[in-house]
Amino acid sequence: MSTNDFPLRRRQLLAGSASALAASGLATFTRGASAQTARPFPPNLEWKDPANFIVHNARELETKRSAFGTSAITPAERLFVRANLPTPDPSIVADRDAWTVSIEGVRNPRTLSIRELKAIGIETTTSVLQCSGNGRGFFPSKPTGAQWTVGASGCVVWSGVPIRYLVDALGGLDAGVQFITGTGGEKLPEGVDPLSVVVERSVPLRALPDALLAWEMNGAPLPLIHGGPLRLIAPGFQGINNVKYIKRLAFSATESKARIQQLGYRMAPLGGKADPSQPSVYEMGLNSWVNGPGADGAPVKAGTVWVHGVAFSGGTPIRKVEVSTNGGRDWLEGNFIGPDLGRFAWRQFALPVKMAPGTYQVTSRATDASGAVQVENRVENLSGYNNTSWRDHIVAVTVA
Amino acid sequence: MSTNDFPLRRRQLLAGSASALAASGLATFTRGASAQTARPFPPNLEWKDPANFIVHNARELETKRSAFGTSAITPAERLFVRANLPTPDPSIVADRDAWTVSIEGVRNPRTLSIRELKAIGIETTTSVLQCSGNGRGFFPSKPTGAQWTVGASGCVVWSGVPIRYLVDALGGLDAGVQFITGTGGEKLPEGVDPLSVVVERSVPLRALPDALLAWEMNGAPLPLIHGGPLRLIAPGFQGINNVKYIKRLAFSATESKARIQQLGYRMAPLGGKADPSQPSVYEMGLNSWVNGPGADGAPVKAGTVWVHGVAFSGGTPIRKVEVSTNGGRDWLEGNFIGPDLGRFAWRQFALPVKMAPGTYQVTSRATDASGAVQVENRVENLSGYNNTSWRDHIVAVTVA
Repeated sequence: MSTNDFPLRRRQLLAGSASALAASGLATFTRGASAQTARPFPPNLEWKDPANFIVHNARELETKRSAFGTSAITPAERLFVRANLPTPDPSIVADRDAWTVSIEGVRNPRTLSIRELKAIGIETTTSVLQCSGNGRGFFPSKPTGAQWTVGASGCVVWSGVPIRYLVDALGGLDAGVQFITGTGGEKLPEGVDPLSVVVERSVPLRALPDALLAWEMNGAPLPLIHGGPLRLIAPGFQGINNVKYIKRLAFSATESKARIQQLGYRMAPLGGKADPSQPSVYEMGLNSWVNGPGADGAPVKAGTVWVHGVAFSGGTPIRKVEVSTNGGRDWLEGNFIGPDLGRFAWRQFALPVKMAPGTYQVTSRATDASGAVQVENRVENLSGYNNTSWRDHIVAVTVA
Repeated sequence: MSTNDFPLRRRQLLAGSASALAASGLATFTRGASAQTARPFPPNLEWKDPANFIVHNARELETKRSAFGTSAITPAERLFVRANLPTPDPSIVADRDAWTVSIEGVRNPRTLSIRELKAIGIETTTSVLQCSGNGRGFFPSKPTGAQWTVGASGCVVWSGVPIRYLVDALGGLDAGVQFITGTGGEKLPEGVDPLSVVVERSVPLRALPDALLAWEMNGAPLPLIHGGPLRLIAPGFQGINNVKYIKRLAFSATESKARIQQLGYRMAPLGGKADPSQPSVYEMGLNSWVNGPGADGAPVKAGTVWVHGVAFSGGTPIRKVEVSTNGGRDWLEGNFIGPDLGRFAWRQFALPVKMAPGTYQVTSRATDASGAVQVENRVENLSGYNNTSWRDHIVAVTVA
């Protein structure tokens, strides 16, 4: 995990657990490693085409803006990678149906295999998966962590059992439940307090109606790197809340005591420090950006140019997307293209614009069904979360 | 191409062009090769996981029923393969935007590069891609050609330029146009009449409002084996009409003179022979089938079982899907799951059924928005096309 997500990590390293972390592979997540210049493509991810990614480090791969295309979905081989802990051994996907998850905080708590989950129900949902720190690279404060631009995101189709079916099957929720807490099944390093490293996140109970335990992504068994065999999907919520390798699902009255919940992923003030009273990183903000043409320096010929990109939110439908080619002075309304995959998916938009030779500052601005408009400027925060600034998302396009 | 698609192929081979065909690789498409027992996975397709396919021969790979899952889409790496001619050299996808297609039958005919097409417009459509001979393996008459069960099909997202935009950009259609004729850019063998081998198909002008020239599939550049860099997509029409490597798009008053149009893909009577007066293989019929559980012999445990599958048509929305577990004596209405990707996509359905130990004859039956109901029995025909029989699609499921 990058230090930004765990502001105390560096101090903890200095306090003596460095060797345990190094043994576990965790040490490679420190800022030093992330800033190194040699960034080999991770050998276990060779099924993803390196040409489509910006390699921040072995566990943080960003999809290039030019690799998104104009289809409604992001194929697995182009989907960004962000792992908080070392990837579990591939043996956990050898017999997927045998993976178990324990359910707590219901009338009849029990442990179920994926095989048993498949008898409880099936639903399919499309949602944007996005790292909470997507857009961090635009923060002038240079928060620690991967310097994502816009590509720590993708729109994918999940299939699994609705958690509300599971709750019904197990007799209903215990009294007083306020949170859904998911615990990841990664192997934790020895010699450190498990609560200091475990990926355990609590989301408010409002996530329940749409949440899944998913075993399939984009029509194939969920890849190991993306949380297979089983992942908690909380549509509309930032990536970290979608716990991979889920081993325990607890309906609880209080939030997890894990550091990743208490101090990680908080909207801490610039220059301050994270604390549990600050807002947690939950629903994604209203967002959009342009993916082409001209992203990543691709040449653009003068004439009519179809500007295209994506727009999404934490669950409110997108009503309108506007495009500007002069850095936000003037706006033109774009057209949605392709199928509407539901309120948690992104909408693709496109708009023909006549461009003479020159340089253009191209960006987009979304409006949702409530009338809310995507913000011009990021909200500054310690760790560089929730960047939905249309100004930060400007692409400088040179037309020849 | 398999002999069923070209009933005269064998005679033609005997007539002396066998050596030219052998040199071109075409000879491997004859029935002898298709029936051989050793079926190595094609080395150029290793990016598809062999475990998900039935290998009919090097250019005909069928997706296993159990590999479809329950998401709305079929990922590229699980999509069936059916090639009429040897795959073009990969050099044609080295600079995709440079590929050109000539447009004829419009006021201002001209040749355009993909780069130029991208300036004319972008749209995204989801459609079922299905080999016209899907389900041929169930015909007792054993028509020649790959003995597909249900897996010569998939549901994919295409992105490209709407052909109606292209027509507008080039001044409109010539007078008297009745057909859209697409010509594939495969290299043809020397020494044979080009019209006897070229993949050139004409579809009626009614395909125009929905047709695309597509450069993207499922969010990535169209793979070579699936027709990249550019493919004609006629949503709702059987696979053969979706011409790969399209080099020429002609709006014409008459159908193509190519054998594949005149004699191939005709609904010829059993025991008869193909002729141009017979109906051509155009829109897909109303169809559905069950994909799980228990497909491909997977074990099923007694209790509640979620039966799931897909339903689609040639463009009429699906209104209802019913499921039977006793070979069609009784029917229960299924629920649609997942997003509706439009009238050319398939809908996923699922239904919980209590099953005690025993053997069940599981199948499904779709009803479309016009009230039409999927047929019980196939329409017998010489080449085994258009099999939408719910009886043929029965899966025998053993519950233990």
